[in-house]
Amino acid sequence: MQILHRIQDVREAVKTARAENSGLKVGFVPTMGYLHKGHASLLEAAREQSDLVVLSIFVNPLQFGPNEDLSRYPRDQERDLAVARAAGTDIVFFPSVEEMYPQPTKTVVSVSEVTERLCGAARPGHFDGVATVVTKLFNIVQPDQAYFGLKDAQQIAVIQQMVDDLNTPVGIVPCPIVREEDGLAMSSRNVYLQPEERKQALVLSAALRMAEGLVQSDSGSLQAEELRQAVIDHIRQSPLADIDYADILAYPSLVPVTDLRSTPAFIIALAVKFGKTRLIDNIIIRK
Amino acid sequence: MQILHRIQDVREAVKTARAENSGLKVGFVPTMGYLHKGHASLLEAAREQSDLVVLSIFVNPLQFGPNEDLSRYPRDQERDLAVARAAGTDIVFFPSVEEMYPQPTKTVVSVSEVTERLCGAARPGHFDGVATVVTKLFNIVQPDQAYFGLKDAQQIAVIQQMVDDLNTPVGIVPCPIVREEDGLAMSSRNVYLQPEERKQALVLSAALRMAEGLVQSDSGSLQAEELRQAVIDHIRQSPLADIDYADILAYPSLVPVTDLRSTPAFIIALAVKFGKTRLIDNIIIRK
Repeated sequence: MQILHRIQDVREAVKTARAENSGLKVGFVPTMGYLHKGHASLLEAAREQSDLVVLSIFVNPLQFGPNEDLSRYPRDQERDLAVARAAGTDIVFFPSVEEMYPQPTKTVVSVSEVTERLCGAARPGHFDGVATVVTKLFNIVQPDQAYFGLKDAQQIAVIQQMVDDLNTPVGIVPCPIVREEDGLAMSSRNVYLQPEERKQALVLSAALRMAEGLVQSDSGSLQAEELRQAVIDHIRQSPLADIDYADILAYPSLVPVTDLRSTPAFIIALAVKFGKTRLIDNIIIRK
Repeated sequence: MQILHRIQDVREAVKTARAENSGLKVGFVPTMGYLHKGHASLLEAAREQSDLVVLSIFVNPLQFGPNEDLSRYPRDQERDLAVARAAGTDIVFFPSVEEMYPQPTKTVVSVSEVTERLCGAARPGHFDGVATVVTKLFNIVQPDQAYFGLKDAQQIAVIQQMVDDLNTPVGIVPCPIVREEDGLAMSSRNVYLQPEERKQALVLSAALRMAEGLVQSDSGSLQAEELRQAVIDHIRQSPLADIDYADILAYPSLVPVTDLRSTPAFIIALAVKFGKTRLIDNIIIRK
């Protein structure tokens, strides 16, 4: 496994591999590190479908708001490299902030509409930062396919929209949410949770399962707002849960939906704070 | 010479050529058509430096403002193909608006600072449209180098900034302004000029030559504002000239400059209307 810090070195490593095998498939997993089983599942999917697997680890300042957790975002380089190695990664790209942003960027890639709600509304500028850094990473690695976890379902919708609009020559592969045994969605931010918060955070996945059950047993009268209210009521049973949003939207367009039967797929998306820690979770329900 | 209308066909043609020659250099000239000797010089530079020369002809609606000349922008497909053929072009990409924008784009590539002045100020949204379509075209053609004329000096500065910021794997090659024998900078829009306007439009290149002379004979006391005023006074001798801007800025940063000796290169940039026709011209002066 090669560990590279310089853009130029990554370009050359990929170029060399392509020169040796003109049909080479490059699979790419961009992350912010502090890798968990969710990330490992992305690397494993990339490993299965690609000849060369590239992982990037970069905590991207551009996607953090001024009052967000950039400085305290968890990092563990040694464990990350062990996870990467175990998953069969070929190249780890581990750039510094100075390498990625030698100057403050004057160029921003901005996606509208799919960014209007959910985390786009709650975290202004966040998805501009995501779209811009993903564009940079795609331009550096030039992968055939890139793998993203569905926990960040809006992120996937944004990146797919960007790729479609800009004709970016990269296939986007969404991968299922990976959960702890008790249901909590894997997240680098779970490490922030105090024991009681960790316990009450189970309400997210429980509320989504409950909602899925309501949809499955629905005879056709269930309205989106009614379902949303049931989810909110469920979450409010946990006194530490501070709801940022709980929304039901068409997926992947992320426009509001009133009649659940009118849309082929919808997402129930949650962002809930437990103490200082903001967790997200979601379920996508298809007809 | 292949003439292709579909994105997929261009991708495949370039891919096929690369598969046959792994060291293939692809040179790309993006244009809005109505090709003149300026465009031909770009194609010739690309021909000299590349194995495969790709020309795109696309009048990009995204870079025109609501009151601009999109609908009457001149077109001559037959002549364009003759110019392309004569310059040794291999592939002409000639997409429809529907092919490039099957849906209105939700994604915009936006460059700040270098777009604040000159045409960026005079044509709001123009450079977002340019940066976005150039990103799309680069993603479709995936060239090694792209060729742009220095008549649109701000456009080159914007694209170079974008490429630097986004790590776009394309080299930007600026090419000199090509002029008519009498000095008028080649432009597709010159065809709009009425005979008297055409005559008076010579004032642009004349004012720039005059300014260059002032700089060359300057003993060190010449200030930017004084030079700018001399250029404006010169242009105003032509009664049909309606000055949109006449500015002196550092190049390529395009920030204001007061002391001409403090900057290694500056641009004198002009946009002047003659009747309905807006012409631009410039000179870049290096120490």
